[in-house]
Amino acid sequence: MVAPEINMPPRILLGPGPSMVDPNVLKAMATPLVGHLDPEFLGLMNRTQSLLRYVFETENQLTVPVSGTGTAAMESAVANMVEPGDPVLVCCNGYFGLRLADMAERYGGEVETISRPWGEVFTPDEVRAALEKRPAKIVAIVHAETSTGALQPLEEIAAIVHSYDAILIVDVVTSLGGISVGVDRIGIDVCYSGSQKCLSCPPGTSPITLGPRAIERLQQRKTKVISWYLDLTMIQKYWGSERTYHHTAPISANYALYEALRLVQEETIEKRWARHRENAQFLWDGLESLDLTMHVPLDYRLPSLTTVRVPDGIDEARIRQHLLSDYNIEISGGLGELKGKVWRIGLMGYSSRKENVLLLLAALERLL
Amino acid sequence: MVAPEINMPPRILLGPGPSMVDPNVLKAMATPLVGHLDPEFLGLMNRTQSLLRYVFETENQLTVPVSGTGTAAMESAVANMVEPGDPVLVCCNGYFGLRLADMAERYGGEVETISRPWGEVFTPDEVRAALEKRPAKIVAIVHAETSTGALQPLEEIAAIVHSYDAILIVDVVTSLGGISVGVDRIGIDVCYSGSQKCLSCPPGTSPITLGPRAIERLQQRKTKVISWYLDLTMIQKYWGSERTYHHTAPISANYALYEALRLVQEETIEKRWARHRENAQFLWDGLESLDLTMHVPLDYRLPSLTTVRVPDGIDEARIRQHLLSDYNIEISGGLGELKGKVWRIGLMGYSSRKENVLLLLAALERLL
Repeated sequence: MVAPEINMPPRILLGPGPSMVDPNVLKAMATPLVGHLDPEFLGLMNRTQSLLRYVFETENQLTVPVSGTGTAAMESAVANMVEPGDPVLVCCNGYFGLRLADMAERYGGEVETISRPWGEVFTPDEVRAALEKRPAKIVAIVHAETSTGALQPLEEIAAIVHSYDAILIVDVVTSLGGISVGVDRIGIDVCYSGSQKCLSCPPGTSPITLGPRAIERLQQRKTKVISWYLDLTMIQKYWGSERTYHHTAPISANYALYEALRLVQEETIEKRWARHRENAQFLWDGLESLDLTMHVPLDYRLPSLTTVRVPDGIDEARIRQHLLSDYNIEISGGLGELKGKVWRIGLMGYSSRKENVLLLLAALERLL
Repeated sequence: MVAPEINMPPRILLGPGPSMVDPNVLKAMATPLVGHLDPEFLGLMNRTQSLLRYVFETENQLTVPVSGTGTAAMESAVANMVEPGDPVLVCCNGYFGLRLADMAERYGGEVETISRPWGEVFTPDEVRAALEKRPAKIVAIVHAETSTGALQPLEEIAAIVHSYDAILIVDVVTSLGGISVGVDRIGIDVCYSGSQKCLSCPPGTSPITLGPRAIERLQQRKTKVISWYLDLTMIQKYWGSERTYHHTAPISANYALYEALRLVQEETIEKRWARHRENAQFLWDGLESLDLTMHVPLDYRLPSLTTVRVPDGIDEARIRQHLLSDYNIEISGGLGELKGKVWRIGLMGYSSRKENVLLLLAALERLL
């Protein structure tokens, strides 16, 4: 069979990611390649790191894109911080907390979890109580739970984690570039994200940053990081002044990430946060006008990813199929505990536009 | 500082990878995104798997691109096959053999190595003797050593490995798409590659295929695969009929891989092997005319990557710098044992063209 050329439908991506990509990013990605040790590429790497520090709101030297999708950065955080036998506390209020716990166990961590129903967030006291009961060397928590639409406040939790002399790992996959993550202000030790959410870059690279406490822990490891590919003790030598070959960087994906970050800088990160917030409000108001109910209370509702409850008697998958086939609109269903109970609507990066919200609302009005 | 737009020089990539990318592949990569569970994307995934089987010369069902560069596929092979305590034999005659040994140790393997000087290959008897001395559950070897330019014959070694009831892992990073790898014919159990060599696709995805013995081993594991991101027991459910979400596939990189494979099919794999061989011969003849000596004897010299010895009294780095700055040509220096002793010239995929060879020879003639 002769393989046909690629011919993709023009989707409007309003699911949990990937989000739509600015045409300038697509164009950047089509730039002919240079080598991964080319002086021009090394210059691009330096500029990418500066821009990543800007969106992470950090001065951390070790701030790099991992050469894989968001899950690779999550695993990099876990693999580099956890040594076999380390006590780890994972806060699970959604799918990605569970994934963190699974990973930490695979890397030999002695994992305890605390749980909250999907869509709720943790109080500082809950984290304190868990650490009081059993101290941990590493605490992992999700800032923006893509599976539930909840936004976890972090300031007090970070202070508590540090008072127990533990390292705080925070997942900002669905917040970076759309909501302030404040790595230095909050004092997050290891913070990672994906490229395909609020940064509006194709999936394939995933930013990570390590603060001084995390670097110290990395340097004091007694064992090698089990994952060779994700070992930051080696990766930092390629991104640092040594430029030691580790693995061939995904050149085109790095072009895309650079251009996506450049566009964030051009818009300014503050205006971008405001845009995400405003378009989310427009969506929430519109959904309420359709008599739909948001799953997460306004106090800790995520602007970039909204979970809205499926009304009784509605076949949620059929609605999604019609959105896709009739109007080229992608939204997503629920995961895990919320499967069949909610739709997940993403308004991230380039997808976060008034016209997209208006179209989705009009389509939902017809279909419901 | 305002980040400037991307402005890369038009490099002629004749190093060990990435190779140059066909403009059609760049164009495919600039296709707007669809979701990773979009029915149109799932169709593309199926067609990609068929094309990967074509280039791997296999019928293996579990044939997928790993979402990372070649090293990620190498690690996937090791991580999925090796369980803590497993005896592993790694054949080291270059940099990538050493990397395999390091990885296998990190995943808890009891690693023994056999060695050959860089640029030589192993005889079947050497592998047999090593297995006779200490049986291994897994044997890993490199087909095309990117660090040395040697092409390892595999037929007899595969038979020996199987006679000891071991699994054979073969690295075909620098051969797939340029030289026959014959997965089914030879009986390779786990075979992996990169996209950025003879397939001429940007780095970012890395093909892997598992045969029946490897699948059986995977199913009989007593422990979870330590790497969550590279765990094929889960990844196969996304690429299989279940379509279970694992991680967000790098959509654009998969577009690129598909188009690159489609171009291989259009050319036919047999003509592509012949082209790599012919252009390599043209290069070797030309280098000999310049009184240069190939590091690897013709019998097991790799057509896709040539190591040529640096003549006495020549500053090898200066020559490379001039090639790059005066003529936009990238070649590479030696790694490890061969550092400072050889240049590495790649003629892979789209880079394997007569005009590139002629230009490089003309430039070298002026500079030497």
